[in-house]
Formats: sequence, structure tokens, C-alpha cells
Amino acid sequence: MPLITLLTDFGTSDSYVAEMKGVLLDRCPGAVLVDVTHAVPPGDLRAGAYLLGRAWARFPRETVHLAVVDPGVGTARAALALRAHGHRFVGPDNGLFTQVIRDAEVEAVVLPVPAGASPTFHGRDLFAPAAAALAGGAELSSLGEPLTTIPLRLTYTEPHYEGKSVVGEIVYVDRFGTLVTNLTPELVPAYAVLEVEDLEIGPLRRTFGDVPTGGLLAYVGSGGAVEIAVRDGSAARRLGLGVGGRIRARLG
Amino acid sequence: MPLITLLTDFGTSDSYVAEMKGVLLDRCPGAVLVDVTHAVPPGDLRAGAYLLGRAWARFPRETVHLAVVDPGVGTARAALALRAHGHRFVGPDNGLFTQVIRDAEVEAVVLPVPAGASPTFHGRDLFAPAAAALAGGAELSSLGEPLTTIPLRLTYTEPHYEGKSVVGEIVYVDRFGTLVTNLTPELVPAYAVLEVEDLEIGPLRRTFGDVPTGGLLAYVGSGGAVEIAVRDGSAARRLGLGVGGRIRARLG
Amino acid sequence: MPLITLLTDFGTSDSYVAEMKGVLLDRCPGAVLVDVTHAVPPGDLRAGAYLLGRAWARFPRETVHLAVVDPGVGTARAALALRAHGHRFVGPDNGLFTQVIRDAEVEAVVLPVPAGASPTFHGRDLFAPAAAALAGGAELSSLGEPLTTIPLRLTYTEPHYEGKSVVGEIVYVDRFGTLVTNLTPELVPAYAVLEVEDLEIGPLRRTFGDVPTGGLLAYVGSGGAVEIAVRDGSAARRLGLGVGGRIRARLG
Repeated sequence: MPLITLLTDFGTSDSYVAEMKGVLLDRCPGAVLVDVTHAVPPGDLRAGAYLLGRAWARFPRETVHLAVVDPGVGTARAALALRAHGHRFVGPDNGLFTQVIRDAEVEAVVLPVPAGASPTFHGRDLFAPAAAALAGGAELSSLGEPLTTIPLRLTYTEPHYEGKSVVGEIVYVDRFGTLVTNLTPELVPAYAVLEVEDLEIGPLRRTFGDVPTGGLLAYVGSGGAVEIAVRDGSAARRLGLGVGGRIRARLG
Repeated sequence: MPLITLLTDFGTSDSYVAEMKGVLLDRCPGAVLVDVTHAVPPGDLRAGAYLLGRAWARFPRETVHLAVVDPGVGTARAALALRAHGHRFVGPDNGLFTQVIRDAEVEAVVLPVPAGASPTFHGRDLFAPAAAALAGGAELSSLGEPLTTIPLRLTYTEPHYEGKSVVGEIVYVDRFGTLVTNLTPELVPAYAVLEVEDLEIGPLRRTFGDVPTGGLLAYVGSGGAVEIAVRDGSAARRLGLGVGGRIRARLG
Repeated sequence: MPLITLLTDFGTSDSYVAEMKGVLLDRCPGAVLVDVTHAVPPGDLRAGAYLLGRAWARFPRETVHLAVVDPGVGTARAALALRAHGHRFVGPDNGLFTQVIRDAEVEAVVLPVPAGASPTFHGRDLFAPAAAALAGGAELSSLGEPLTTIPLRLTYTEPHYEGKSVVGEIVYVDRFGTLVTNLTPELVPAYAVLEVEDLEIGPLRRTFGDVPTGGLLAYVGSGGAVEIAVRDGSAARRLGLGVGGRIRARLG
């Protein structure tokens, strides 16, 4: 059975997600639909790209990932369908696929705007029909003309050295108040001491149980990056930090 | 595979929706379940009717739509199963189906209360079994006696003329703070100038990109009605308006 | 088609639930996934146990219930797969299954931690693979060694007599502000008068319609326990009460 995941900033209070799902199931009966999330903050491409970048690889090859965070809906931004890593992706060309296409061979086509599509709801009228077509077996090349550029990529501040430290930043805050950073374990040896905004956290730990309840800790999170958390609490609230906050690994 | 959509005001924090889904899958194995939303504000029949009215038509014919916003649960209000537009609907007779049955030939039956049904959870004990039966192939007429009246309808203030203006009102506010009105494009010619509560919005635009970031605009929304939005912002917050707020299209 | 329900405290804003679903569908293609809820307050085992205890029995026999509220993830707490009541359950041994295993014959195995599992995300790397294996037909005994103790159980204050009253407490507050108590109807005869924190509620009613709008009432809720609600309102807000608040049934 074809599998389609959905990631949007539409929320689940309105009918928008259901309207998309109606189109998907009307055009590809039998498709299995899985929500990644619909709670991306409105228009937040960085959060959308992060979440899509974490989720897609857990699904079987050939899954179609429909991702719509689209503040430029109805403007000249291109609408894309991509193939990368043996998966298919459908959504706007605005950076949402930055994590997905990193290190991938990408085949991409530009989706035309169907006649009669609502200029404010391409999720339903343009992207969902394309996703349904792919899930139903259509070839990528049948859906549009090849993209002649490369898909748009968001730019990130990369971790860098400052004297005897590696400095990174917080890229995502999750529902538990965990601060996900852009430091990877290769940059943080076992003897490194982590600091956020001048507060010392200590060396990398393995898991929450390695500190007492209420303790701050750094560890390699389930997405492969260094995270800062409070055991049974919220690091975001404790530290008053969010996306863009600085983290430092002191190496000496 | 039979398709059942669910719309309730039960939220998704409790077990209520899952209890309904358990009943549906126990009685109709193989049914595909799609949430429209469970975030209808508690008891808000107008919001429920609006959302159901937008969502149902996107699904294939024969879909069963289970809708439970039911402040009168356990009282003498009737429980209904309907057929309209080639779709089936199940829920309380309290106006929730107002948008669905507008301009439709409707066949309706009154569902009896099963013995042992919880008087406070007909969603699980009365409506879900009926929806499962329909999805499993039961005839509408086998589920209850024909409804001898017409299903209850909510009454709305219709748009009306005041001098050289058409005056309507806000009927729904979505997660983005977009104000959905009851004005339709036929009532708003290209030369009309829109106003909300004495603030001039300008003529109808096509999409968000037609105004700068932070700009207010009016356009024909994806549900077919005039909407007021702020590009990359919230019109509800900017204007301090909600359901019942007035919109005026000045024609001269 | 095998059925898997999911209950977690992961929320639906992040990618965590989707990562679990990707693993489930990758390892058990064709499984039907149903969310119980992901809005258990972080680490709240009592709420998790209550919600799981309400939901599981509505699903068909052989359903696999994957439940992850796991503040001790990565510590020495055991990971379990259980069979009880003809259903299967997978999750941490921390009391989450207290309601499920009450009055049940239970067969339980301890799941080993797979090599490479993230020490902070056993939901994805340990529990989801086990749930997928069970849903795909694996025997419980093939997944781990038999549990030699009994699964951990949360302890509850039981209702008790104080003079001519039965005293219980609030065990859950739902999205409507309804106060669910641990009093069962056998403890509350028709002539009993209910009180919460010295406020008299009156005798048990049948449903909301038995009091005027805004009225307080007690009734036997859809989960089989006595509940306190405000018709078309919130008892939690009206009374300022939450979990642990006292309820008294005066018998004389």
C-alpha cells in the first residue's frame, strides 16, 4: 500500500489538513496517510526543514512525503516534486527540503499550477494531487518539467572554532523544552566541557538518569546532535533560551 | 476500503476519540479513519458546521462522516444518520449538518439509543456503532425509523445591502488568524472596496504576495468566501476581531 | 490487518511520533496505526495509566498497544511486552500498565535493548520494533526473557468510609474540565448526596440535561466512575479543583 506522510503548518483545528487528505484518498484510494506534524509554527521553514529532516528516513523507501510550509503560496516560488534517497517529496521550493537533499542525488520537477487552484491553498489543489499521483505510481518526470536550478537551501551558521572551543547554536526546541544544537558528537570529545551562555553543563552524558532529577545535562540526542535537557524538566524554561542560543564545547 | 471521517469537540488529550476509533475498527475491520478535527471549541455548533461543511466534499462518495459536537447528549434531541450528496453522515440533530444539507436531497433516519449506552457518550455508544454499520455496508433504512421532520438548521445572518454597500460578517477565524466572512465573490465586484469595522482593506486581491509582508488584504479564500488576512501575520490579532465582526463591501 | 495503538507524552509538534510510526510501518507494512493520545503531560504516569486503561478494551482482541511515558528511559527500568485480556502491550515497566493488568492473567517478557538504540528514545528504537514484531505475528516469548517479578503498579488512595460518608478523590480532569473520581456507582446509592470540598452537588444524575445550563452535577461517567461536571462549562475551573481533590458521598 502506498504511504504518504504529511507535514504542514496548518494546525489541526481547521479543516485544511482534512481537505488535503480527502484529495489524497479520492485520487489514491488505499493510500496510508501518516501525519509527521501539522504544528510547525506558521511559516517557520527552519522548524519545518528540521522536522522533515528527522522524520523521512524512518519510513520505507518509495514513501511520498508531502510537506507544505508555504508562506509564498500563490507567488512565483516554484512548486516541486523531488526524488532523493529513494523517497519522493512534494512541496514548495523555499528551503523546506534543505535537510533532505543534503548529500543526496536529487531529481526534481517543477509542478504546474492546475487550472482553478486556489491561490492561497496549493497544499490541497496542487501539492496533494501531485503526491497522490506519485503514490499511485506516476513517474516524477510525468508531473512537470525538470527543475533547471537546484532546490533552494536554507543557510545555517555552522559550528566553528573560537580558540580552544567549538561554538555552535540551538537549532530547535522540542515539546519537552529540550534544546537541540548543531554540534555533532565528532566535534565534542569525551573530555570537552559544555557551556550554554556561560553556564557550565559538564561533559556529554549518556542519558537522563546520569543526573539527578532537576539536573541539567548534555548528551547525544536521538537525532544525532548534541542536546541540552533538564531531567524531568524543561531546559528551555530553566535557561530562558531558544533557537539561536549559543552552545560552547571547551576543549582545553 | 470503507472510509470514515471524524469531527468532534473532544480534543485529543483524552481517550474519547480513541474509544470511538476502537469501536469503529472493532465493528468495521479495515475501515480507514481520517480525522477532520477534534478541536472544535466545546459545544460550538457553528464552528463544527462550518468545518464539516468545508471538509466533506473533498472525500470520495460513500464516505461516512461521523460528527459529534453534542452539548445535548442524553437529552431528547434526536440522533441521526443521513444520506446527502452521495455521502453518509452520522451525528446529533442539532444543526451540525446545516451546511451539508443546504441544497441537497436528504434521506434521514432517527437512530435509537442502544441499551446500555452511556448517557454522556453517545459518540462512542450510539454514533460510532451506526457509522461502523454504514461503513460496513448497512442500508440507512436499516438503522432507524425515517425522520419525519427536516434536520435542524442553524440560522445565519445573511449578507444584506445597506445603501451602496453589501454588509456581511465574520463566520470563522482559523489558526492563522484569518477572518472568514459570509461574503461570496458574486456579491463583491472588482471595483468594490472592502472595510472591516471602518478600516479600509482595499479591493479583492488574488493572494498574499499581492501585498507586502505585514499588509492586510481581502481575497476569495479556498472555501469560496471572502477572507481577510495579514500576510505572514494574524488579522484576528491585528484587528481584534472574531466571529460576528462586520465586513462591508462599498460598491460606490 | 494488524492494529497498533500509540499512547505517549511526546506531543504532536515534534517528529518523535512520526519517527516511531515510520519504524512501525517499515517493519510491519500494512499495520493500521491509531493514536490514543500523545498529550499525556510529560512524565505523568497516572494520566497515562488512566487513559490507556480506558482505551485499550474498545479495540479488537490481538491489538498491540504501544505506550511510552518513560521518564526513566535509558536507566535500569525494564522494558516490557505483555499479553493480558487477549491484547498485547509494549512499554516501560514503570506503572503505566497498572489499570490494564488489574484482574488479568499477565504474561510478560523483558525486552533487551537493541545495539545502537538511542538511550533517550527507546520509543523509536526499542518499543516500536517490539510492537511491530508482535503486530507482524511474532510470539511474545520470542522477544525476550520472561519477567520474573510482576510488572510495577502505581499505588492509589482507595475510596474509604469516614463515618456516614464514602470519601474518594479526583483521579483525572478531562479537556472539558470534567472531574473524574475514583468513586464507583456501587459505592454511591441513589439517596447519597455528593459533595466536593464542602460544596454540595446533590445526588447522582443521569446526564447533563438533568440540570440547567451552568449547573453542577454528578453522574456515572462513560468510564464507569462518578464524575463532576458543569453543564456547558468546566467544573475544574468553576471549583478550582484538580487531581487529588476530595469527593464525599454522604450516605445519611
